[in-house]
Formats: sequence, C-alpha cells, structure tokens
Amino acid sequence: MPDLDLIVREIAEEMRARPDRGEVASYIPELAGVDPNAFGIAVVSGDGQVAVGGDADVPFSIQSISKVFTLTLALGKIGDRLWRRVGREPSGSPFNSIVQLEAEHGIPRNPFINAGAIAVTDVILSGHQPREALGEILRFMHFLAEDGGIGIDEAVAASEQRTGFRNRALANYMKSFEVLENPVDFTLGVYFHHCAIAMSCRQLAMAGRFLAHGGRNPATGFSVVSPERARRINAIMLTCGHYDGSGEFAYRVGLPGKSGVGGGILAIAPGKASIAVWSPGLDASGNSHLGRIALEALTQRLGWSIFG
Amino acid sequence: MPDLDLIVREIAEEMRARPDRGEVASYIPELAGVDPNAFGIAVVSGDGQVAVGGDADVPFSIQSISKVFTLTLALGKIGDRLWRRVGREPSGSPFNSIVQLEAEHGIPRNPFINAGAIAVTDVILSGHQPREALGEILRFMHFLAEDGGIGIDEAVAASEQRTGFRNRALANYMKSFEVLENPVDFTLGVYFHHCAIAMSCRQLAMAGRFLAHGGRNPATGFSVVSPERARRINAIMLTCGHYDGSGEFAYRVGLPGKSGVGGGILAIAPGKASIAVWSPGLDASGNSHLGRIALEALTQRLGWSIFG
Amino acid sequence: MPDLDLIVREIAEEMRARPDRGEVASYIPELAGVDPNAFGIAVVSGDGQVAVGGDADVPFSIQSISKVFTLTLALGKIGDRLWRRVGREPSGSPFNSIVQLEAEHGIPRNPFINAGAIAVTDVILSGHQPREALGEILRFMHFLAEDGGIGIDEAVAASEQRTGFRNRALANYMKSFEVLENPVDFTLGVYFHHCAIAMSCRQLAMAGRFLAHGGRNPATGFSVVSPERARRINAIMLTCGHYDGSGEFAYRVGLPGKSGVGGGILAIAPGKASIAVWSPGLDASGNSHLGRIALEALTQRLGWSIFG
Amino acid sequence: MPDLDLIVREIAEEMRARPDRGEVASYIPELAGVDPNAFGIAVVSGDGQVAVGGDADVPFSIQSISKVFTLTLALGKIGDRLWRRVGREPSGSPFNSIVQLEAEHGIPRNPFINAGAIAVTDVILSGHQPREALGEILRFMHFLAEDGGIGIDEAVAASEQRTGFRNRALANYMKSFEVLENPVDFTLGVYFHHCAIAMSCRQLAMAGRFLAHGGRNPATGFSVVSPERARRINAIMLTCGHYDGSGEFAYRVGLPGKSGVGGGILAIAPGKASIAVWSPGLDASGNSHLGRIALEALTQRLGWSIFG
Repeated sequence: MPDLDLIVREIAEEMRARPDRGEVASYIPELAGVDPNAFGIAVVSGDGQVAVGGDADVPFSIQSISKVFTLTLALGKIGDRLWRRVGREPSGSPFNSIVQLEAEHGIPRNPFINAGAIAVTDVILSGHQPREALGEILRFMHFLAEDGGIGIDEAVAASEQRTGFRNRALANYMKSFEVLENPVDFTLGVYFHHCAIAMSCRQLAMAGRFLAHGGRNPATGFSVVSPERARRINAIMLTCGHYDGSGEFAYRVGLPGKSGVGGGILAIAPGKASIAVWSPGLDASGNSHLGRIALEALTQRLGWSIFG
Repeated sequence: MPDLDLIVREIAEEMRARPDRGEVASYIPELAGVDPNAFGIAVVSGDGQVAVGGDADVPFSIQSISKVFTLTLALGKIGDRLWRRVGREPSGSPFNSIVQLEAEHGIPRNPFINAGAIAVTDVILSGHQPREALGEILRFMHFLAEDGGIGIDEAVAASEQRTGFRNRALANYMKSFEVLENPVDFTLGVYFHHCAIAMSCRQLAMAGRFLAHGGRNPATGFSVVSPERARRINAIMLTCGHYDGSGEFAYRVGLPGKSGVGGGILAIAPGKASIAVWSPGLDASGNSHLGRIALEALTQRLGWSIFG
Repeated sequence: MPDLDLIVREIAEEMRARPDRGEVASYIPELAGVDPNAFGIAVVSGDGQVAVGGDADVPFSIQSISKVFTLTLALGKIGDRLWRRVGREPSGSPFNSIVQLEAEHGIPRNPFINAGAIAVTDVILSGHQPREALGEILRFMHFLAEDGGIGIDEAVAASEQRTGFRNRALANYMKSFEVLENPVDFTLGVYFHHCAIAMSCRQLAMAGRFLAHGGRNPATGFSVVSPERARRINAIMLTCGHYDGSGEFAYRVGLPGKSGVGGGILAIAPGKASIAVWSPGLDASGNSHLGRIALEALTQRLGWSIFG
Repeated sequence: MPDLDLIVREIAEEMRARPDRGEVASYIPELAGVDPNAFGIAVVSGDGQVAVGGDADVPFSIQSISKVFTLTLALGKIGDRLWRRVGREPSGSPFNSIVQLEAEHGIPRNPFINAGAIAVTDVILSGHQPREALGEILRFMHFLAEDGGIGIDEAVAASEQRTGFRNRALANYMKSFEVLENPVDFTLGVYFHHCAIAMSCRQLAMAGRFLAHGGRNPATGFSVVSPERARRINAIMLTCGHYDGSGEFAYRVGLPGKSGVGGGILAIAPGKASIAVWSPGLDASGNSHLGRIALEALTQRLGWSIFG
C-alpha cells in the first residue's frame, strides 16, 4: 500500500489551495456562520492506522450523516420489518421533495432522504420519550467512535426546531398515511437533535469502522451488525447516500458514502478503511464540493474504488 | 476460491427446482413465447475459467443489456461530451417513464432507461446509415465475445418496430428538445435492432469480461476502454442498471449489473469475473426474478459482493 | 317562471327515493355519523321567495363551502394583493394534493383547494388572535344569512385539529416558502374552525344571495362586494369549486358552485337565485353525489344553466 | 342594448393603440412571420347583426380553435362514448404536457389540450382515409360559417408535419395505451391539417353561432347539435378552453372561449352572440394577449359575462 499518511496530507494541502469551494448551507444561521475555508480529512484503516489532514479534529454538524447510524439502530430494533415503512430505492428527487411521498402513499423511497430518515427516527423512538431515544443514539455514537465526548450542538438543534417547516410538512404528511407512530413533535424533536450531533472527521471515521469491516469494530473485534447487514447498509449508501447526486458520487468516487449539509461525508472502502472528510461548501445537489473531490483523489491514488 | 464449477451447477439446479418464476414479458409476441422454465448461467473468471449451468448455450434476446455495450461505444466516439445529452443519476421511475423527460427538458436521467439508451444510440448513428451503425454494434459484440456467430433476431426487431409506440413517443419527445440529431425513425431502427441481439449466457459473459478486468480482455490483453472508464460504466450499472429495482439489486446482490426484459442479466464482479444469467420470468420492476436470486446466491457463496 | 316551489319539492322527493347515495366522508368520526339518507334543498330567488324541500332546516357541517366566504372576506381586506399568495387556476389534482405546491414554490393553485384556503385564512388572521379572526368570520356569516344563530360545531373542529395531518403538512409546506405569515397552529386553528361551521340549506342559500345579485343583498339592498368581484368569485367557483370534479359539475349542472365534504353544495344562478343542497354521500371526487344530481335536475327544469 | 357597432370599433381602435402585444408564436416559421400589429374582431348577434373592427376579414391560422369544431363532429359521430377516450376536466398543465397522460394511462384530460384533440381527431378519422376525414371537417366549417371559401394553409400544415415532434410523442404515447385506433401518421396528418385551417374573424364568429343559440344557426334555424350539447360544449370551453390560463380567462372575461396559438379566440355569449378576435401576440400561457383584453373590454361594456 502507498504511504497513506503522505497521500492524506497531500490531499488536504491540495484542497486548501483550491479556490472553488461551493456554497455554505444558509438555511440555518448556525450553519451559515462556518468558515468556508475549513477542510478536514481522516482515514482509519483496518489495522488501526489513523491518517489525518487539515481540520481533522474540528467538530462540525454531521447533519444527514447521522442517518447512517440511525438506520443501523433501527434495523437492530425491528430488522427487516423496517422496510414496510421505508423503501430502499434511489429517489431521483431532491432531498426534501414531497412529491414522491404523494405518489407512493406516504412511504419514503429510502432511509437517507429526509422523509425516510424521519420514519427511521420514529422507529427508534417507538413509544419512548424523545430524551431517552436521543440518549440511546448518543450512546451508540460514543460506543462506535470509542469517544464519550461526542455531543449535540443545541443551537443548531434549536434553530432547526424553529425553522424546519419543510421537515414538519414531510412528517405530518407521513403521519396522515400512518407511517409515523409517535406524535409528530416527538419524532421531529429527536430527528432535529440527532442531525445536530457535532463530530470531527477523526471521530466520524472511527464511528464508521464497522461498515468497512464486516460489521465489526476491527480494533476490539466487537460485532456491531452482521456482515450481511454491513454490506447492505453500504449498498444503500452507494445508491442513495448523496440525494440527487448519488449517481455522480458513485461515478466519480466509487465508494459507498453519506453526505450532510454541514459539509461532511462519511465514505467506506470495504475491507480497507473508514474515511471522513469535511468542507462546508456545497455543490448544487447539496453535497460537499471539495469533500467529493478529495474522496475522488483518494480513491484514485489508492485504487480503492469498489468498481475495479 | 471455492469450486466455481460446482457452485454454478448447484445454483442452476436450485433455480430449476423453484416454483416461483415471475412473469414472462408479454408486450412482444416473440418474447412471450419463450419457455418460462429456461434457466442458464455462465461465469467467466479472469484466468479464463468458464463455469456454466443450465441453458447456458441457448441464445435469448438480450434487450436492454445491449445498452451497456452501446454506452461503451458511444463513450468511445465522443467521450464525456456524451453527458451533455444524457445524465447518470438513478431515475426513480419505471424504465419507460416520460414524466422525468418533461421535468428535465428532454435530457434522459441515465443511459440505461429507454430514453437514455435511445439518445446513446443516436450518438452512435451520428449521420451514418442505420445499417452501418448496426454493423458497427454487431462487430463490437463479435470482438468482445470473440464469437462471430452473434446475430440479431429479426422477428423480435420487426415486432418492436411495429409495436414500440412508447419508445417512439420517447424519441419524438427528445427530438422536440433537439436531444436527438438523426431522423427519429433511423435512431429507433438501430435501437430496436440492437435490443434484438440474441446471445447465450456464455457469449454474454464473455462479452462482459473487459468490465471485470480494468477495461481489458484478460485473455488477449487487448484494451477495450481505460480502467477509469470501466469503473465508471460499472458504477452506472450499479446505480441505474435495474430500472426502479436498482436499489434492490445493489442491496441483495451487491454487484454492478444490467438486466433486460428478455430475462437476462449481465453482472460484473470487479477483478474476479463476468457473469451472465438468464431466466425469462420477470419481477414487478421488469428484472429477471430467478436471475436476481441466482446472482444473490452466487455472490453470497463466493463472497463477491463489492460492499464487503 | 315555472312554479319554483313545486319543482323544488319534486326534486326533494325524487332524491329521497333514489338508492344511490355515494359514500359519507369517514375521515372525521363526527362526519361519518351523519344519516346518509338526509337530503335538503333551499332556493332563494331575487324577489325574496324561498323554496325548500326535504331537510332544508337541518344544520350540517359546511366544510369547504366556507372557503367562498373566507375568500370574500380576504379580498375585502387586501384586494388583488391576495393573488400574490394564491392562484386562480383549476388544479387538475385532488383537493389535498401537495405535488402542485412543490412544482409552484408553495403558491396554491386556487383558493378552493385546501392549501389555497389555508393561505386565504392566513390573510384574514393577519396578526390577530385566532379567536378574533374566527369571530369576524362568524359575524360575516350572521350578516350574510341575516341569522345570528349560525355557529361552529366544536366537536368537528376538535376532531380536525386532532387528525388533520395532511392539512398540517400543507400549511407547514407553504410556511417553508413563506407563503403563510402567521404561526402555522394559529392559521390552522382558524381554518379548522371555519370549516366546522354548521348551517342549514336555508341559511346557506340566504348567505349566498349576494353572489347571485351583483354583490348585493337583494332584500336589503346592502352591497357586500362590487358587481365585478361577485362575478369573479362566481368564475372561480365555476372553474375550481368542485376540486377534480369541477369540469364535470360545469358540464352537467352549468352553474358556479362550491361543495364541501359534509355533503353540501352552494350554487349560484346569476341574476336568478342562490341555491343550497345537502346530501352526505359523496362521489369519487369528494362532492355530494345526490347534491349534484339534484342541481342538474333543477337547472334543466328551470333553464338556469349559464351556458345557454 | 348599447350600440354594438360603436363598441366594437372603439375596442379595435384601443387595441391598435396599445404597445403591449405579447409574443408571436415562433415554433412554426409560418406563424412567426405574421404581423404582430394585426388586430381583428367580429361579433355576430342572434338577430344577424355583424359588427366588425380592424382586420376582421384577414384570414389567420385558427390552430387550436379548430378543436371546438372537431369535438362537435366527434360527439355527433359517437356521442357520449367519446368520453371513454378523453376526459373533460381542466388539466392544470401546459397545452402540450405529457406528464398527465402517464398518470392517467393515456387518457387525455380534456378535448382541448393537444393530446385530447388528437384523440378526438382519431374518432373522426375512424377507419377512413385522412383525405376523407379532412374533407368532412372542411365541409362542416363551410356549413357552419355559410362560406365555402374556407381552406387550409398547406404551408402551415406541412411545417407542423415536419416539426411536430411533441405532438408525435403525445400521439405515440396514447397509441401505446390503445387510445388511438388509426395509424399514428394518419391521425396526426388530419390533426395538423385541421389546425392549419385559415379563417377570418368574421368567418369564425359565423361558424360559432350555433353555440350561442342553443345549437341552432339563428339565421337558418337549422339545428347543428341539441341545446344540451351546445351548453355542454360551452361548459368545456369555459373550464378548459385556454390551457393553463383557463381560470384567468373565466375570471377576467367571463365567457366560454377557445384560443389558438395563431392568436385567435372564439368566445360565446350564450343567447347573445358569437365573437371572434385575433391578435397574434401571445401571453405566457399561449393565449392571445390583446385578444383576451379586447374580450374583457367587450363583456364589461355590454354586460355579457355569464357570471352576473
């Protein structure tokens, strides 16, 4: 294997030098204030090596990347019954589209568009108090990343609570089809808060290790999910992880990945490494502009594409 | 590696025994007459081993699988300029939907839905006579499969010419947006004919070898496309190769693949093998029912999923 | 003119005898409990004659018919500026569709689909407390019908508050586009309550008189709106008053009309009469089945169609 | 009645003076070449009075206005069975949208959008040769207008034949659902030709008389259709006659009307008059800009709105 440390540092430098950075998400004031020049990357390989570059230890709002972990939790709770309440096909629509929901009777297309992730959150909540569900999600993140310092950015969560009318529309719409079981405000409360989890690239790459290694934490050997489930979550990340830019990400990067509007991307090189990048500027599909470019460079130089 | 021959034969026997076979496509009389109990499989590995089972040498109508090869040809002709005329995102719609075309001004979502494949065919045609374009496509198939015996089922082609009103609608619709350059009848003539190419599983698996081996024929060493292009075609197969069941195929099988309504599927295990299966009965998304199940069994037993 | 009294009584008898009654709306328990055999009709002509038949004095939930009166009030408040927040084209979609809203950036197609009526209610609310806005609407109804006994069925309103998830989705969706100015819960509170106004056919026909007579109450001579505005409200009732069955109503009845899922219809014969019918069973488009048939019979016998 | 002649001449002069004229349709070269300053108007009242203004005797391409007459003919042929092949609800979509067709299995929403008019033309053709069907349509126009000089602009027809890809898409799409019975090229040939009929305002207003007078030619007393059918055609004109601007036309003009992209509008004042206006510049919905304004002025001054 080429020198991972060197390649990661090179990429971080190249990204810092680029003038094109995309547009920082502006729909929440708390996100809009982030430094557009930030760039971080962390790669954790199966043998425990951690290669970092740039702002790899600066926490950012993981936003939709949290959907990977809530999907994992919900599958752990109710298994394949989850697929009665959410599909697993690419949506062909922007992340917050409500059109698809009407055509398909309130069943979201996949767990990574907003509607789908709200339905998944509803499964985790499942009759409990929002506080308990949120505690469970946070403990899961601590366990995966082996880092108890991961927390929620309450200002971001409060801002989404105040302004998240479109998500409120999606949730009420699904509720009208009885796809949600809990009170809409409870489910949305948990949803807004888990999207507001703040993590650094290093923490995020650590948390993603089980997906790269057959469902196990390669350091401790603890099993998080079965190998088959890890493969399947990776498959959903590949086909649906970047909203309406999922095809583009597969085409250019060639790895399963999940992006968030905070500018982060978690990518999985199966059998090799868990990777996190962060750059706040977004492209037209709402995915990190430099994040995608950095991952493309990484997989090319390391030959990590799953497509050959 | 486990005994490939044995596994392939086992799967062929298991599939023969199953009572569930899906529905044979009925929209063309010539396809409707196919024996629903047919099942074939062929796996060609990088070292030249060919494992076959069932009706592996019976030719069938490859239909949309031809789109993989026409995409390869069109990229060879005009490179990335192709992407001005067709996208590469999953469509979230059935294979013959026209709704997406209206929303996106006549640009098909990807080269594997009908509209996209018609646009790709128009690029290959590019001012030539239909007969010449068709000859070029056939010669390409002969070259890839190293088999000059591959031909077109004229009865199927004539049947589609006569009844393909929906494809005619798609083509005229794109023509109204000037996405097609040639006369609609010319482009459709070539399209209907290349969909009517008849191949056996063995021939098809041979033809797909370059996608499994970095763009090269592993037997001759001849390069068909660059390694990057092979990866990218695989990526599009993974995200878009099974119409509105692409997510499901990725989730269950975990390989890039392309299906046709004739009941065939070409699947690629990068670095390992090119695989073709055939069973005429289709599922609700228009993909071979047993073909998908057979591929799921194969990847599980061989550990060939690209997702870990 | 033929004997209006006689014709109205005949129609009431014919309707009572018919076995086909449609389906009573079931989405609110309070509506589902209504007697499906109820039928009422009231016609108030310009000279003050009131012809009634059947259950003409039984109050029912006017539901969407209230949208005619809230539209009138909102136009009185802000005039043509209203049309910046709601269109006036037929929707081509069911009454509670959210698809159109996404395509047109949160602007509802017309004031008579649910989304449009919620936007209109938001204009009436305009910074006031829900209680005040509701009081204003009720006083307007008392004034129009010259009947202070008209009130709100609080059980129906409470039921809609509890179960109106789809309307809540529509309202939040519009709020995300800043089409609503007030807190969503305030606007919806007023909306659910004015839909829950209970009126008899007699009261409703009295309230509609101004639309039949150039904007004036023909009994008192008081002007409610200008003649031009009365004409224009009638035009919107004709093109949009029966959701996705508006074309059918125009084709068969030939009068401007507005239906509600409570089974009522208010119809206007310009220059001649204001008409209210009520029969709780609905057709597939959500409009009163016998109500439409009764109105068709009435306009045929009286030659009142506006189309010649 | 005010002086009809005077009012018509006044309106013609006012329209000539206005600087805003809309955009002349450019999709056919033959239409694009028309003088944007042309304006004509003709009003034929029940007593035979003909009031004209401006270019009332200049022939123009009636385009979609022909759909009123083909609808009348098709209803004469197969009566209400026509409604199995086309609906009668407003479409909520642009005139050439194909989206609605997919959602409703190839059944066009109404006879006045392009798809619906093509289906109606197919009914008239009904196994005959295109030349015969076209002859029948022309003879019907001669009969209605009492003018044997009405003909087809062959240059316009040929141009549409050559460029009408979108209509070809619509027709093939319906053919795929078996909504059309004749060969697509036959049906489209007739369709393109009847849209290319050239008539002056005077001829058009004469041809529309039967719709204003209970289905009869008021001059000869000959019955063209039953009074009920005349009313119903008027109702469809009101709700569907101006594509996605039908609501606007009803709101502002208050008469049943049908527009064409050639800039003509036929409007019906039931019991009073048949009216034709022509001004080639179109508004955003594809309807004559000054034509609509002229009709609004006319109905206001004469009090002819059907809405009171």
